[in-house]
Amino acid sequence: DNVVRVRDVVFKSIGEDWVFLALLGVLMALLSFAMDYIIEKCQSAKMWLYTELAFSLPLQYFAWISYTILFILFATGFTHLVSPQAVGSGSTLTLGKEGPFVHIASIVATLLGKLSSFKGVYQNESRRTEMLAAACAVGVAGTFAAPIGGVLFSIEVTATYFAVRNYWRGFFAAVCGAITFRLLAIWFQHEETITALFKTNLRTEYPFDALELVAYSFIGVICGFAGALFILLHRKIILFTRKRRRLTNFLQKNRFIYPGMVAFVISSLTFPPGFGQFFAGMLTNKQAINELFSNITWTIGQADDLEDEKILSHWIHPDTNVYVTLVLFIIMHFLFGAICNTLPIPAGVFVPVFMVGAGFGRLIGEAMAAWFPLGLAAAGLVHKIVPGGYAITGAASLAGSVTRTISTSVIVFELTGQISHVLPVVVSVLIANAVSNKLQPSFFDSIIRLKK
Amino acid sequence: DNVVRVRDVVFKSIGEDWVFLALLGVLMALLSFAMDYIIEKCQSAKMWLYTELAFSLPLQYFAWISYTILFILFATGFTHLVSPQAVGSGSTLTLGKEGPFVHIASIVATLLGKLSSFKGVYQNESRRTEMLAAACAVGVAGTFAAPIGGVLFSIEVTATYFAVRNYWRGFFAAVCGAITFRLLAIWFQHEETITALFKTNLRTEYPFDALELVAYSFIGVICGFAGALFILLHRKIILFTRKRRRLTNFLQKNRFIYPGMVAFVISSLTFPPGFGQFFAGMLTNKQAINELFSNITWTIGQADDLEDEKILSHWIHPDTNVYVTLVLFIIMHFLFGAICNTLPIPAGVFVPVFMVGAGFGRLIGEAMAAWFPLGLAAAGLVHKIVPGGYAITGAASLAGSVTRTISTSVIVFELTGQISHVLPVVVSVLIANAVSNKLQPSFFDSIIRLKK
Repeated sequence: DNVVRVRDVVFKSIGEDWVFLALLGVLMALLSFAMDYIIEKCQSAKMWLYTELAFSLPLQYFAWISYTILFILFATGFTHLVSPQAVGSGSTLTLGKEGPFVHIASIVATLLGKLSSFKGVYQNESRRTEMLAAACAVGVAGTFAAPIGGVLFSIEVTATYFAVRNYWRGFFAAVCGAITFRLLAIWFQHEETITALFKTNLRTEYPFDALELVAYSFIGVICGFAGALFILLHRKIILFTRKRRRLTNFLQKNRFIYPGMVAFVISSLTFPPGFGQFFAGMLTNKQAINELFSNITWTIGQADDLEDEKILSHWIHPDTNVYVTLVLFIIMHFLFGAICNTLPIPAGVFVPVFMVGAGFGRLIGEAMAAWFPLGLAAAGLVHKIVPGGYAITGAASLAGSVTRTISTSVIVFELTGQISHVLPVVVSVLIANAVSNKLQPSFFDSIIRLKK
Repeated sequence: DNVVRVRDVVFKSIGEDWVFLALLGVLMALLSFAMDYIIEKCQSAKMWLYTELAFSLPLQYFAWISYTILFILFATGFTHLVSPQAVGSGSTLTLGKEGPFVHIASIVATLLGKLSSFKGVYQNESRRTEMLAAACAVGVAGTFAAPIGGVLFSIEVTATYFAVRNYWRGFFAAVCGAITFRLLAIWFQHEETITALFKTNLRTEYPFDALELVAYSFIGVICGFAGALFILLHRKIILFTRKRRRLTNFLQKNRFIYPGMVAFVISSLTFPPGFGQFFAGMLTNKQAINELFSNITWTIGQADDLEDEKILSHWIHPDTNVYVTLVLFIIMHFLFGAICNTLPIPAGVFVPVFMVGAGFGRLIGEAMAAWFPLGLAAAGLVHKIVPGGYAITGAASLAGSVTRTISTSVIVFELTGQISHVLPVVVSVLIANAVSNKLQPSFFDSIIRLKK
């Protein structure tokens, strides 16, 4: 009874929705953190096994692929039985976490709304939609710790007409989620304080020369075409199997064959001592993005500390060079991303295309740095090119082009903790959106049309 | 004929609206830059006159106040004759430029639409509204060089239901405007490259301790109350003169008396050798914001270079201390801001409240830095408090509370070129909005109700 009385007082003074939104944000952050934690443990278990078996290459190979295949099969089975959940992210496949996470957030929101305490929140249809939009924002915010970008992304993706008063709700829930998510990192992962998830340390006193806007626009154009190609490729793969009746029937009856095959092929290709050594196959998506965003210029090969040396060792192969690694990285993960999103497990498209875009941006940035070793600044001044700036631009542009959103630019600023490249990023994202919009529907619209 | 043919080809390939939006952005940037240039010239002419007359205090005083009064009277007369335009910003009154600028942008958009080439853009009512929303975004983006914040701010202020497809238009025009605006700064003001307008250089490797979120929330609560008080004060002043029939008639007949009086009182109070010395009366709004955002801690009084020493000399008076200066600065400009916005000249409310908020944030930040000289980090670690982070939080919160928007947080990131304080700023802005929303309508709604 006391609990009920306290609850009523709290609800009356603060408002029922606010409590609901705060709870939603905190819950999702807890889930997101737990998921990251488990994924990280699985990853390090895998790496431990991999290093322990160093004495025998075949055993290493066997461990490497079986680990991925087992996870994917488990995910497939689990999805088939229970529906959702992205256990698949534990593998090194080119899959994202934010997509399933938005789903989970909506489910949690619906479940929360069913609690007797929150009957008022779901009084009518329009209110329910509002709350689901907020849940969507929380889902994105909780994965990237990017509250503003999360809210804007959810608006762009879910709404055609948007009621500005929802804006608040989304923000509030997203901020509760982001703070909890980062506080957990302090308490459990010994992080020093609240910082960005993929913190960059790019030069801010002279972030880029005005002339570099031309190169940045070029990234936008290419990412526009690449995004359209990605959507087309994804659809073609699905239509390919669908057209072949017997193949479809066979795959539906043996639902583990297609995922198992894909997992086998991809994990074989990424096997680090094999082909994987030529495109940083060792790295997880998170590590790859982190290293692509790094401040050092790879073509120069200068390394200030052990951290930098480690990054260079991943991307510079003794027999080839940075460009080969990056081009292979882009092509392979572009294909992996399109293929993995056709698997019957919940998977996000954002992180894969974000990573491929980062690779492409890094490629252009490194090429620019090699082409103009003294930078583009006016006579006498030397301000070297910052390839990391190109990497974040590429990431935002390709992600924006595939999901057909502009808010990827805001997400990238919040993710990296730096906003010094705001103009090049926004210019490139706008161009990428404009180009891909002429060629293909957005990735989500494409899926919706396929499901009809 | 060739021109017409070229035009038709361009319109067909790119689309009429895009050309229209790009033109709008570029034009507004040119206007904004020209206005800033003239204002700066007027300011330095005033300072020149002021220093030249240093031999005689009365002459200095006369020059100081007459300059302001003349400008205000000119603005009043000009407004009366021609309508709009913010010549008033040339004075040191607590007035903003972005409000009138949004008006000008809408006017330019309407004029552009009347050109025969752009007939299609204004075909129907809903398209016209869309274009005006884009104009509003351009107005904000052009004053602050903040494209993303400008678009979001314009959505929050103008729309109840917002069509997500407008989003693009606003972004495109705003980016064209922001780039032109910053390129002009490179070409004419010898800036090195495109950077933020109020570039800060706050510590990013440990921007704030998680515990400091409490202090940041406190800023949000106070800014919420202060914002509501500001709106109330502004309304009371207007209602005060309106209720007194004879006073209203008198003021309407002698339309120069009220502005002249206000200009006289305010410029007398800010007169640097007089009372002005106690609250940095010498500084323009732009300079004050820049110095409030500075990276140094004023209470410690450490100055690394001449620049820092100059800042300290403005805010540390030999007879008082930093706190007195800041408190007086806050109170005076809070009052000035409310009063100046009742003058019959077009004036913005954003910059004044932004500045007052920055002052309040700096006050809390300095107090925190003095209270916890070694910072709040866990035992053994020393991470000093960064008062500049408090200043940007206060600025975003008070501006958000008065205009009842959340996007002020995005504007502040774009303005300063740093996003490391994203969580404290968003938390504080949300709290400020929630508190003031319980007490008063937004400043703009309040004005609309007064006009009815």
